[in-house]
Amino acid sequence: MKIFLFGLLLLPLINRAQQLSEDSLFIHRMAANILSSDASYNNLYYLTKKIGARLSGSPQMYLAEEWGAKALKDAGAENVLLQQCMVPHWVRGGQDNAFVIYKDEKGLQQYTLNILALGNAIGTGKKGVKAPLTRVNNFDELEAKKDELKDKIVFYNVPFDDTLINTFSTYGKNVIYRGIGASRAAKYGATAVLIRSMTNTPGNFPHTGSLRYIDSVKKIPAAAIGLEDVKKLNSIFDKNIPLTATLFTYGKMLPDTIAHNIIGELKGRENPEEVITVGGHLDSWDVGEGAHDDGAGIVQTIEVLRVFKALGYQPKHTIHFVLFANEENGTRGGKKYAEEAKQNNEQHIFALESDAGGFTPRGFSFDVDDDASWQKINSWKPLFTPYYGDRFEKGEAGADIGYLKEVFLTPQAGLNPDSQRYFYIHHAVTDVFENVDIREMKLGAINMAALIYLVDQYGLN
Amino acid sequence: MKIFLFGLLLLPLINRAQQLSEDSLFIHRMAANILSSDASYNNLYYLTKKIGARLSGSPQMYLAEEWGAKALKDAGAENVLLQQCMVPHWVRGGQDNAFVIYKDEKGLQQYTLNILALGNAIGTGKKGVKAPLTRVNNFDELEAKKDELKDKIVFYNVPFDDTLINTFSTYGKNVIYRGIGASRAAKYGATAVLIRSMTNTPGNFPHTGSLRYIDSVKKIPAAAIGLEDVKKLNSIFDKNIPLTATLFTYGKMLPDTIAHNIIGELKGRENPEEVITVGGHLDSWDVGEGAHDDGAGIVQTIEVLRVFKALGYQPKHTIHFVLFANEENGTRGGKKYAEEAKQNNEQHIFALESDAGGFTPRGFSFDVDDDASWQKINSWKPLFTPYYGDRFEKGEAGADIGYLKEVFLTPQAGLNPDSQRYFYIHHAVTDVFENVDIREMKLGAINMAALIYLVDQYGLN
Repeated sequence: MKIFLFGLLLLPLINRAQQLSEDSLFIHRMAANILSSDASYNNLYYLTKKIGARLSGSPQMYLAEEWGAKALKDAGAENVLLQQCMVPHWVRGGQDNAFVIYKDEKGLQQYTLNILALGNAIGTGKKGVKAPLTRVNNFDELEAKKDELKDKIVFYNVPFDDTLINTFSTYGKNVIYRGIGASRAAKYGATAVLIRSMTNTPGNFPHTGSLRYIDSVKKIPAAAIGLEDVKKLNSIFDKNIPLTATLFTYGKMLPDTIAHNIIGELKGRENPEEVITVGGHLDSWDVGEGAHDDGAGIVQTIEVLRVFKALGYQPKHTIHFVLFANEENGTRGGKKYAEEAKQNNEQHIFALESDAGGFTPRGFSFDVDDDASWQKINSWKPLFTPYYGDRFEKGEAGADIGYLKEVFLTPQAGLNPDSQRYFYIHHAVTDVFENVDIREMKLGAINMAALIYLVDQYGLN
Repeated sequence: MKIFLFGLLLLPLINRAQQLSEDSLFIHRMAANILSSDASYNNLYYLTKKIGARLSGSPQMYLAEEWGAKALKDAGAENVLLQQCMVPHWVRGGQDNAFVIYKDEKGLQQYTLNILALGNAIGTGKKGVKAPLTRVNNFDELEAKKDELKDKIVFYNVPFDDTLINTFSTYGKNVIYRGIGASRAAKYGATAVLIRSMTNTPGNFPHTGSLRYIDSVKKIPAAAIGLEDVKKLNSIFDKNIPLTATLFTYGKMLPDTIAHNIIGELKGRENPEEVITVGGHLDSWDVGEGAHDDGAGIVQTIEVLRVFKALGYQPKHTIHFVLFANEENGTRGGKKYAEEAKQNNEQHIFALESDAGGFTPRGFSFDVDDDASWQKINSWKPLFTPYYGDRFEKGEAGADIGYLKEVFLTPQAGLNPDSQRYFYIHHAVTDVFENVDIREMKLGAINMAALIYLVDQYGLN
């Protein structure tokens, strides 16, 4: 009798152990399938080498949409929906270039800068902008010099803090200079800004990215420069030698244009009205090939779908595999997705985004408020350990799915790959296929598939 | 009174918390120092670009020894000892090359193979070896075909198992074919062997590595081939078309020659008679630049010393920073180090090796038998979490320090970097400076410094 009772008490534990072992086995099968398959290699190759950079509104963006719809279909989507949205249409408009002139002990010197205009920025046009160059190391210095900035070009020399282990922490601190540095300087009469690229890697290629103008202030041109040029400029500034910079950029914001979120769907067999979202963004900056940012996230999203179908997995909930439009300079795709979900009274129970590169995974960043959900998620950790994805942290999940949080309070997660090499490639010519390790990207996909599978199986409540 | 007693009971906990916080702070200071310093970049650059590949007995090995002694001195070693040992002296002897001839529907075809003789192998000489080529996928197939192998060249087509997450697991399974495949085939009269390279990365560069002949069997030439050539050969074999291969290799084992372990020392201020070892190996294969294998381990070892001195850390125990000789084709340096330690009645309480690449760290592999020590080590885990080195596993520690285990039962550890990209560079032309991410390598050094610091502070008993 005692033994019987003891056995009864053990039953839930035994059931739990068996469940865990079945989950572990299924995840293992997904891992083996993903690691043995050429699909993610082929998809990334096509997206980067056959299509390439695909800024919102560019011809390549439309090619990418067409390809994405086909790739989702090929991977086994039951339906592929195109969700229309209007996106900003910025064009670089020409070859950026710049130089500085200064006088040293050998006479008048001209030094060419390798610049890249910031996205959304207006251009100087053919006449260019020529003005004395002033260096500031942060906004405090900008404020201190505010009376000297009229008709100057401001050089924001904000170094990347190498001592923070997660490179996104440094990026998070510095990106405001790229975002509103131009408007802050324009307020005091500056005619253009140069921004030290948000990178920790030696080299001389500039990293572009979004700028946003503050409405009340005059728009001025803005461009990024690489670290070798930063070093050169600093060596001149350090000698108190006056510099004059001349910039030529041709950026132009055209009228908003049509783009689409591309949504592959698997209908849930138990709770079709409840939706789980997994996605990345299909657009990229106009330099490089958008291989890590966010080709990897796109390929991983498709890979989760492919492996589910390959193993005959029939989800309980409806799953949306979303290739979001326009993350880079507007996040209009993410916004549209949440708005339509609201209009359609959809129930969004979980969302996952991969938009931090195709590097070897560390874990996930969870934006989950409910304590019970968070505990449940943490109970799954051991299932991720074999795939190096068991570092679970609280934090932001992703720019595109963030709108779901605003609208539905949807709990969500972002894949956290190792960040050490991210700012070598971020928004630069180096973000190409060759710099993605396919196995590392696949490991990310495995962890994503595992998380979506577990949420689908057990929910978060 | 109750409160007083309660306070007394809490004291050890409070002390422990304070200690942890002090340790955490010191490790943080080491991390910031390592991440801000150019030393590891400069050291790796010199070792790879100014010296380059440095096989035992080569002129570059001697240059590396000289450089290593100076680098340890510059980093702050109180003493630098050169510990002489005799090492194998294998030379490649010339440019390896090979081709196959076969007949397809278009007539007689010749296809050039990109081969690389295995280390320690004899060469074919100028006359070459020409024979029909036979494919086997494993030793079982070799045994099954044993009566057909006389005067043949055997092609070991053993694929890398992509489904294992840790790539070293696959390497561990396959490396025996490189090790004794030649002798196993020679036993049945084969005249040479070609080995499918131990790699999972597309491309066509072969990966060399140690071969060891079985004494009773005739020595035959052996070489590795890259994956594109493997694909080509397999496509021909799959059509049952006979192939004849011709190999030219010039490998030669010269008489043993002199080399040195280079040992930088910090004397312990409390227990100088107890030694902690941290090291990597200074030699490398003769292709590429030995950047990951094991330039990274060498640079990290020097970095631990440098940061200790930079922060004024005075160790309790004597610490040996060892640049081991001859790991690649003999491990005579490691052997010598343990033998001399025994002769000198040294007490070796802990050893750490970094010889798995300069990639972003995951944790350590501990070869520690004592349960209390293992528990103590695990209590330090949270200190490694911020630096991504908190994955503590039991396993082998390192080839060089392994001898200390044999002689003294010294508990030991090996740094475990992420393994996904390792077999892209391992023993190949791709193991160059450009393929090392300096921040990733530095993160490894931080975790190594933390572990040596903690063992020095608290011991393992």
